[in-house]
Amino acid sequence: MNNVLGVVVEYNPFHNGHLFHLQQSVKKTDAHITIAVMSGSFLQRGEPALTDKWTRTRMALKGGADLVIELPYIYSVQKAEIFSDGAVAILNSLGANRICFGSEDGSVEPFYNAVNKINEHKAELDQLMKAHLKQGMSYPKAFSTAFHTLFKEEEIVDLSKPNNILGYHYIKAISKLGAEIIPETVHRLQAQYHDSSLPENPIASATAIRGSLFDKDGDLQGIKSYIPDATFRELADFKNNFGTFAHWDLYFPYLQYKILSEPPERLAGLYDCSEGLEHRLKKAVSETGSFTEFMEAIKTKRYTWTRLQRLLVHLLLNTEQEFMEQYCEPLNPPYIRVLGMTGEGRRHLSSVKKNLPVPLVSRAAEMNHPVLEKDILAARIHSLPFHPKGGLQKEYKAVPVQFDKKTETFLT
Amino acid sequence: MNNVLGVVVEYNPFHNGHLFHLQQSVKKTDAHITIAVMSGSFLQRGEPALTDKWTRTRMALKGGADLVIELPYIYSVQKAEIFSDGAVAILNSLGANRICFGSEDGSVEPFYNAVNKINEHKAELDQLMKAHLKQGMSYPKAFSTAFHTLFKEEEIVDLSKPNNILGYHYIKAISKLGAEIIPETVHRLQAQYHDSSLPENPIASATAIRGSLFDKDGDLQGIKSYIPDATFRELADFKNNFGTFAHWDLYFPYLQYKILSEPPERLAGLYDCSEGLEHRLKKAVSETGSFTEFMEAIKTKRYTWTRLQRLLVHLLLNTEQEFMEQYCEPLNPPYIRVLGMTGEGRRHLSSVKKNLPVPLVSRAAEMNHPVLEKDILAARIHSLPFHPKGGLQKEYKAVPVQFDKKTETFLT
Repeated sequence: MNNVLGVVVEYNPFHNGHLFHLQQSVKKTDAHITIAVMSGSFLQRGEPALTDKWTRTRMALKGGADLVIELPYIYSVQKAEIFSDGAVAILNSLGANRICFGSEDGSVEPFYNAVNKINEHKAELDQLMKAHLKQGMSYPKAFSTAFHTLFKEEEIVDLSKPNNILGYHYIKAISKLGAEIIPETVHRLQAQYHDSSLPENPIASATAIRGSLFDKDGDLQGIKSYIPDATFRELADFKNNFGTFAHWDLYFPYLQYKILSEPPERLAGLYDCSEGLEHRLKKAVSETGSFTEFMEAIKTKRYTWTRLQRLLVHLLLNTEQEFMEQYCEPLNPPYIRVLGMTGEGRRHLSSVKKNLPVPLVSRAAEMNHPVLEKDILAARIHSLPFHPKGGLQKEYKAVPVQFDKKTETFLT
Repeated sequence: MNNVLGVVVEYNPFHNGHLFHLQQSVKKTDAHITIAVMSGSFLQRGEPALTDKWTRTRMALKGGADLVIELPYIYSVQKAEIFSDGAVAILNSLGANRICFGSEDGSVEPFYNAVNKINEHKAELDQLMKAHLKQGMSYPKAFSTAFHTLFKEEEIVDLSKPNNILGYHYIKAISKLGAEIIPETVHRLQAQYHDSSLPENPIASATAIRGSLFDKDGDLQGIKSYIPDATFRELADFKNNFGTFAHWDLYFPYLQYKILSEPPERLAGLYDCSEGLEHRLKKAVSETGSFTEFMEAIKTKRYTWTRLQRLLVHLLLNTEQEFMEQYCEPLNPPYIRVLGMTGEGRRHLSSVKKNLPVPLVSRAAEMNHPVLEKDILAARIHSLPFHPKGGLQKEYKAVPVQFDKKTETFLT
């Protein structure tokens, strides 16, 4: 047991499947320390997290992580490649020598094969994809179609599945970084990432758990058997304080206002708002009255739901194309922000601190960096619907959550 | 009876005092036609109007106006001088030869005296005001103090009272335009513009009426005796459709979001956001949870409540300093937009149409002008809290309200 394990997570919310994954990963990698790089306020699929990141950090620490590090928004609300590059780069800086992700078949070989095969057939793949994109296919659809045309063999992992795509990009990121990290994978217990109904066994997808939560107006009883007690208590506290959980509907008024009040040329300058999308957005905002209606109105064959949701997060956070071009270098994150730690986590941080290539941030007020500013803005905008009376999320002053594993108590 | 009377109004809402003023004005000026120039979605004191402008147009037509014309937002949410210049210029274009406003003593002489005296003593007045402003006084306070120092006589109107200031500026505007308009004034029945408690007689200020309305959660019974039946029905319909009336609290979330999401340098580029106010706004938005708390946090001796409320309207409507510099020429409005008319009003429009210096706009879609675009944006943002399901105010397609005086019915 002297390996440093890294996991890349969103924990929205932390559920039994995550607990199982953590425990299996520690076992498989013989790890004495587990570092979780976690998306902050907004997630990879372009959605607000159910709760603030501090609440999810507590869930992660209780679930077994020793360190919880924030994946900055500029990497987290992005396609799999950027998301993975950012997360792996952070894990690498922190001295992780193992990464363990969930996959359908539990073996890492098919992922390596995919990396190699795709490298070998890059030109053909690109050409096929180009043709598909020209036909108006979305990027993922074009990729998946080209992929299945070129690779029919058994030994290569199916990259049309979202979880496999992430695994593939973790391995690619390790290679790009030249990092000494060994990737591993553990078998995922539930069937599909996108499963939306709750199963009978205690493992359900986060999608299904959120679905049940919102169907039942935030009632937690229906999901109790799928989440650890610690998650249940954190969610119950959040519900108790704020009355509900974050979801797009709560942010739709801000989005309406933003799209309505900005001239089209300014919307067009925001990240990912390309090819005249600004006009679709302007038109749709006048004619629809809910987030779902709005999404239905703007979607086309060309853009996936996820791609559009991400765009809407960037709009909401007022993120300009220029900003992303300047700052989004996921292989070189400008800082490492600690959200939470155990005693072991703190000791590990001390041991790697000297060799860290970038500043370690405990309190946001300690550092002045545009990428960190965006994370703070993200947290504050995330908190807007929840703080009608008391002012906004105090992000600048927040300190990392400290968790004592032996007594199972939070020290901060 | 062949005079064309102009009145400058906000009708928020149209009440018995307005009805009395209209009737007295027609009598005093022997008018056969009454043109009301009315603020649209946002008002001179920097507030959203209780209802959309179409509802208030119907109140005005039922109350006796023959034509209701929109005072564009870029003039209406402004200090008295710009507000008055814009309104009088529109009335002048439409052939008004009388303007009648309410005042405390019912005589127009003291206003003329004020214009003359102030012209004579302009240098002294300016010098005194400059000194007062330097001491940190607000503009109105500096003016009123200087005014009372210089002019103690009985025959000059007291320009420290808001209504008198408007009257004074109407007369100045007539003079600036070289217009052949004779100003008249009728005695106001209620005591003070700012009266906030409801009196026993049937005349109450709009401020008192709105106060009672919001104190009682939109209940109309308490104000019934102060408003005409037509106003009561219009307000009841609005309440029935939308559940409440517009007030700043409903727009506070958009304002919070706007101030939070924009960098300070962009806020500083918005109209009237001068002298580092953007930093006060940014600080206050993090620390307060309601519009009133927010206002209390940003106000200083230097800025009146009204001045700050106007700034917040400009922020909400994303109006840049540059835009105002380019387009705010209140003596030359770029179009005349009809909100409502009677048969007499329509005939009058036909008779003056040929000589109009600018286009007459019935449907907003007919014209493409940045000032009109702003009015449309104002209407749509005003409607944001009221259209959670049905999409936004259909401003482009809206047609003027037509009212048949004989049958007392609306034709559109």
